Amino acid sequence: MKACTVSIGNELLNGQTTDTNTSWLAGRLFDAGIITVGGWIVPDEIDRIAGALKAAAEQADIIFVTGGLGPTDDDLTRQAVADYLEVELEFHPNILDDLKAFFEKRGKVMAEKNRCQAYVPAGCEILENLYGTAPGFWCQKEDRFLAVMPGVPAEMKRIFDKEVLPRIQKIHSGFIVVSGKVRCFGPGESTIAQKLGNLMDRSRNPLINCTCGAGEILLHIVAQAQNRKTAAEMIDRDKKMLSTLLGEWVYGYDEDSLPAVIGSLLRQKGHTIALAESCTGGLVSKMLTDVPGSSDYVMAGWVTYSNEAKISQLNVPAQLIENHGAVSEPVACAMALGAAKKAETDIAVGITGMAGPGGGTEEKPVGLVYIGICMGGECFVEECRFPATNRDFIRRRAALAALNLVRLQLQI
Amino acid sequence: MKACTVSIGNELLNGQTTDTNTSWLAGRLFDAGIITVGGWIVPDEIDRIAGALKAAAEQADIIFVTGGLGPTDDDLTRQAVADYLEVELEFHPNILDDLKAFFEKRGKVMAEKNRCQAYVPAGCEILENLYGTAPGFWCQKEDRFLAVMPGVPAEMKRIFDKEVLPRIQKIHSGFIVVSGKVRCFGPGESTIAQKLGNLMDRSRNPLINCTCGAGEILLHIVAQAQNRKTAAEMIDRDKKMLSTLLGEWVYGYDEDSLPAVIGSLLRQKGHTIALAESCTGGLVSKMLTDVPGSSDYVMAGWVTYSNEAKISQLNVPAQLIENHGAVSEPVACAMALGAAKKAETDIAVGITGMAGPGGGTEEKPVGLVYIGICMGGECFVEECRFPATNRDFIRRRAALAALNLVRLQLQI
Repeated sequence: MKACTVSIGNELLNGQTTDTNTSWLAGRLFDAGIITVGGWIVPDEIDRIAGALKAAAEQADIIFVTGGLGPTDDDLTRQAVADYLEVELEFHPNILDDLKAFFEKRGKVMAEKNRCQAYVPAGCEILENLYGTAPGFWCQKEDRFLAVMPGVPAEMKRIFDKEVLPRIQKIHSGFIVVSGKVRCFGPGESTIAQKLGNLMDRSRNPLINCTCGAGEILLHIVAQAQNRKTAAEMIDRDKKMLSTLLGEWVYGYDEDSLPAVIGSLLRQKGHTIALAESCTGGLVSKMLTDVPGSSDYVMAGWVTYSNEAKISQLNVPAQLIENHGAVSEPVACAMALGAAKKAETDIAVGITGMAGPGGGTEEKPVGLVYIGICMGGECFVEECRFPATNRDFIRRRAALAALNLVRLQLQI
Repeated sequence: MKACTVSIGNELLNGQTTDTNTSWLAGRLFDAGIITVGGWIVPDEIDRIAGALKAAAEQADIIFVTGGLGPTDDDLTRQAVADYLEVELEFHPNILDDLKAFFEKRGKVMAEKNRCQAYVPAGCEILENLYGTAPGFWCQKEDRFLAVMPGVPAEMKRIFDKEVLPRIQKIHSGFIVVSGKVRCFGPGESTIAQKLGNLMDRSRNPLINCTCGAGEILLHIVAQAQNRKTAAEMIDRDKKMLSTLLGEWVYGYDEDSLPAVIGSLLRQKGHTIALAESCTGGLVSKMLTDVPGSSDYVMAGWVTYSNEAKISQLNVPAQLIENHGAVSEPVACAMALGAAKKAETDIAVGITGMAGPGGGTEEKPVGLVYIGICMGGECFVEECRFPATNRDFIRRRAALAALNLVRLQLQI
């Protein structure tokens, strides 16, 4: 079964927004054993949308349309799909009721403009949108299927997983593709590639791909087989093999995240954690609390950006800052110790560094970060020197490095 | 002058890589006064590449092709472009010399595989690639221009700016396009659309587009004129007009961000700020400290996820939590007051809410968030009810809503 995507929106063609929907959908379809053979990006123009639909239908069994379902005058996908299907738009009173309820629930009155979202091409099935106002729709023209979804990624993803995927699984048959991921942290991409050697051969089944970002290395395993069970077994075998080969670099699998892995380890061991952040400004706390239920083990966090806050909130000795500077090994350690004491946790992290762009010196350049980890009253500090690319990147690298140190400590 | 993009690569159609080249090129072209009217994403297949080129040539004066110029067997763009141009591939000994030198400089010997990169369709001009092995090329078929570049973003961007853009400026004549942005926060997209009325007419010049995400509304203004000065004046006029029409919903223009706008206001008024976060877990602190130099006004932040931390770190009365629950108006207020007192700031924010997915009740559902703003010793609380979509979304909405309340307070 072959798929095409059609992404709609002027914002995708003027540099404002990058179309991430095609890549996300292609990945999901790939996992479901469906190959995406092409993608179109078209502006909010009826003729151009209808043209892309026609071209896509020549190549694919199923077309995924995203975008252009909003309430404003530049949202023309409804009409374009109706033109392509050669049907009229049909008013659905129940969608209008849902729309009104959507606004009411939020203490608002529906604007008259939203009324147009209750119109759907005749003969389509409605795909409910719980996260926004634009419902999607699903239909068939001759032997081609069409899924039309809003362009907002969060809304699209939910509709795809809950409404579209079950419909695809009903109509899909053929080769099964199953994929899995092994997640690493620590070495560079080339070190991993060298370790893997010919495991990365393009003709291997499963195929192993490697991508990297901000210190994380992601190995993507893709297995093809006659049935799901065999493919899944091939994936499991490779996961185990890679895990043995790469050792403690491996922090998780599939959709695992460092904060979630740390959360499980903390829970398992009955530990609690506190954070004292300077240069990362709350990012580590934010990442740890991204995990649902993290209130069970994240006790408290401090963003002590100023020296005064480090002193008054975390009891960092003023003399220490004076002697060594705020960005120093002893201050990172004192921050972690202060946080552990105040929050009465087993573990605490203290981070201080130069995120830039200003403030760097020859001795303490932008990108220099000290991470203190306090565990059971003892503290050690790791010095990191990240490339002075940009503030965002340095903060992200520092936060991930801190999380990885916590993981390694917990896994000992 | 109209442009199209053709992005080539299997990795763009299996979820591995998101095509960011189209969006980047479209932005650059937009700034140069050239409208991108469509984009194609195609796999590494000769027929499909040639097909996309043919379709693109029907719509555009100039086509930008990226990807498929590597040394491996799946890199077929050279041959596909030659087919489209109806010419043969031609061997360039000087490219081969450059390739050998490229590897030599890095202490390596060129692999025989790279030899194919010295072949270019006959009649094309070579576009030098200083960052990688694949040269790009530039050519003309009838009155259509074609720029073919490697897919690696860093290589493509350099070739575009250094080699392609000067060629475009030579052939480009006619209309100049200038764009600007007005950034709003507060109302829904449809409310703004209603307020704008026929200002959003598709035939208007400047054209006004509207997109939204997490409570932010972005109005994109696009002006066409005979020269840059006139177009820029049209943009300025519309910015002023929209600013008057939308009032305090407007928080900024062009590349402004809420945290940066707040930073400027705090600096202007000589104010400082402290944060007390529960459900947002450090996100507001993180966003405010995304801004370089924010250490001048962000004094301290607390992530008081647990009740104990709220009580011990922010002096929230235990009785208050017992009587009203941690997610309540008085607790949000007490958190803000506690933070302001401890950090000795003029302004403080307290946020407590249900980020989910678990923990919601009928009375206090997931998505319920209280934001307390303390200013000059006085405190007020806003109750927000966000759709219970997912944890990330609720936390982001809550953080932005809190930042917007701070902005409104500072703008009074």
